[in-house]
Amino acid sequence: MSTLQSKTVNSRLSPPRQVFFAGDVTLESGRTLKGVEVAYDTWGRLNDAADNAIVVCHSLTGDSHVPTWWPGLIGSGAPIDTDRYFVVCANMLGSCYGTTGPSSTNPETGRPYRADFPVPTIRDGVRLHRRLMDRLGVRRVHAAIGGSLGGMQVLEWGFERVGAKERPELGELEQSEPEGDHRAPEGKQDDSFKSEPFVQHLIPVATSGRHSAWCIAWSESQRQAIYADPAWNGGNYSAAHEPRQGLGAARMMAMLSYRTQASFERRFGTNTATVQSYLHHQGKKLVDRFDANSYVRLSHSANTHDVGRGRGNYNAVLARLTQPTLVIGVDSDVLFPLREQEELARIMPNAELAIIKSEHGHDGFLLETPQLGALLRDWLRSFEQKIEETSCILT
Amino acid sequence: MSTLQSKTVNSRLSPPRQVFFAGDVTLESGRTLKGVEVAYDTWGRLNDAADNAIVVCHSLTGDSHVPTWWPGLIGSGAPIDTDRYFVVCANMLGSCYGTTGPSSTNPETGRPYRADFPVPTIRDGVRLHRRLMDRLGVRRVHAAIGGSLGGMQVLEWGFERVGAKERPELGELEQSEPEGDHRAPEGKQDDSFKSEPFVQHLIPVATSGRHSAWCIAWSESQRQAIYADPAWNGGNYSAAHEPRQGLGAARMMAMLSYRTQASFERRFGTNTATVQSYLHHQGKKLVDRFDANSYVRLSHSANTHDVGRGRGNYNAVLARLTQPTLVIGVDSDVLFPLREQEELARIMPNAELAIIKSEHGHDGFLLETPQLGALLRDWLRSFEQKIEETSCILT
Repeated sequence: MSTLQSKTVNSRLSPPRQVFFAGDVTLESGRTLKGVEVAYDTWGRLNDAADNAIVVCHSLTGDSHVPTWWPGLIGSGAPIDTDRYFVVCANMLGSCYGTTGPSSTNPETGRPYRADFPVPTIRDGVRLHRRLMDRLGVRRVHAAIGGSLGGMQVLEWGFERVGAKERPELGELEQSEPEGDHRAPEGKQDDSFKSEPFVQHLIPVATSGRHSAWCIAWSESQRQAIYADPAWNGGNYSAAHEPRQGLGAARMMAMLSYRTQASFERRFGTNTATVQSYLHHQGKKLVDRFDANSYVRLSHSANTHDVGRGRGNYNAVLARLTQPTLVIGVDSDVLFPLREQEELARIMPNAELAIIKSEHGHDGFLLETPQLGALLRDWLRSFEQKIEETSCILT
Repeated sequence: MSTLQSKTVNSRLSPPRQVFFAGDVTLESGRTLKGVEVAYDTWGRLNDAADNAIVVCHSLTGDSHVPTWWPGLIGSGAPIDTDRYFVVCANMLGSCYGTTGPSSTNPETGRPYRADFPVPTIRDGVRLHRRLMDRLGVRRVHAAIGGSLGGMQVLEWGFERVGAKERPELGELEQSEPEGDHRAPEGKQDDSFKSEPFVQHLIPVATSGRHSAWCIAWSESQRQAIYADPAWNGGNYSAAHEPRQGLGAARMMAMLSYRTQASFERRFGTNTATVQSYLHHQGKKLVDRFDANSYVRLSHSANTHDVGRGRGNYNAVLARLTQPTLVIGVDSDVLFPLREQEELARIMPNAELAIIKSEHGHDGFLLETPQLGALLRDWLRSFEQKIEETSCILT
């Protein structure tokens, strides 16, 4: 049923689609956005039961075009098989790849938001993408998968329930269903766990259930490098005069958290002259494609990540995620070390742990796609028999 | 023989002493400084044989007052026993604690050097301190000890020979002795290994024989954060308007290379709110006490570190360091990982390896002083019998 010619999708053929949600979108912070655009890409087709969707969640500086950063994973016969699944990836709220973010025009002023754009939480981002799923007619999501910041979203997807609608103030035209409102205020125990999970399987990769002090320290030092750039100007820079030096330094720093000493030694050995130009190249590459305000916002979003926040005891909350779950870690990851994925697998009642072997550290989740693909393929296949029994697949 | 009242020295009672070397000081780069000041501290007394000196080498942002950063290691009856040894620590060339550096006045202009100050190599720094030893009347150094950047200096001290004098252009009044000049031009095999080592024992801690691509990447991203600060101005800032934001960001970043995820988790747990203020505090503390140009120069100095540079094959050159050597590493060090100290101990013919157990990473060499002290005490004592046989100790 795939419309793709090639086995896997590797290059973007068209810009992402966009959907506009009119009306107010109120964030956890209380801040309200007047209408929000969401950019997304899809592969494969939604089945008649509308339950064959796979949601892919991108990481900090990723976009909705999964094949760019996870080559070979999506396609006809690929680990995420478009003959079987309807794959959706949407750009995160606060990013700069088509979804509303700091560089988008604020409808109230006619100028870019810049410094005025709020910090969305991971939950804000997932709730907005849930609306996209509803708009696309997805009744249930078969699996959510994502690494790093994407893995945080996967865990938040795990709390979404079938039939739960947006909060009234989210401003859609649909009737709100107060009894189904799963978004409990901070500290209030919600009842949503009585209904069925919206996402049937979870695959969080190279991530944690709550952002660690270590990761927060990393992101803070990166933001400080951005703030040191005079062009930053508190976030109110023009498109023509962006804080390139600061964002470049932040990216160079981030690269060190994404890799390991061993991977640098392997790559550069004693040819130390090239390592500085490599880092500069990495910095420039990001600066050419990413917005500093988005970088700052999304790194702050990560800092808000704690599945227990406002829901109750951390372990008890994680234990409510009863979906079959494949937690994947990278053995050399120094940013989200393996013990964090071990913790998830230990606490989540129906979870198993798989380990990617890599010398590349955190970036192993992006670089070791053959290993990741094999894990995804095997694990998804183990549930496919069940799908075929319970829904109508157009094969 | 100690003049100290307390068992160990823990707080500075007086400013460091300073010695001025008049005349030109030519660096490996070919750049010449017109006269150089060296700040230093000493503890204990030089014996009549002038061979009981222990040279302590400080790290990147350290100073000559060892008890501030290695508390409890120096004193009467302490691991480095001032009843027995004459301990000397001198501030590095390019630093800002009394030895000539970028914030010193350039005698040719009457203004601070700032951006005009050259990058000294580790060898330049050690050669200058050798002149201090000569000035102090030290005939031979019993041991050199230092961690991180200080450990690089320890290895360079290992190449100094007894009787070797400064190059004529270093401008001292002493007669130059061409046959004893151990400073071979780049690429030329030097003959100095025929003479006796000036330093009898080496204790390099948490360091390597040549700076790794990984370390160079870390220091480059830190420099970029400094460069992003508008106050940096290419290094030509005024004392009243220093690049505080950039240097603070660099220090925050550096802290992440000095520690580990585990140490952050232990310290902050899930109390993630405090980690950002902790980092800011660390950044501010450094900014209040250190000069950005010195930070940039000394981090560049580290990049020049390679004992093989200009001397021949790296392994063969290391193998020429035949002094008894205690290489010390920290098991959790991610900046100078243990394999680098294992390499030193393997290649150096008379070396043994000792490992500090710590969850703090690289900073373990500063934080685990009880372990370090025990290692130093035991190892130094094993050679003391020999000293007593061969020289006159005033006990």
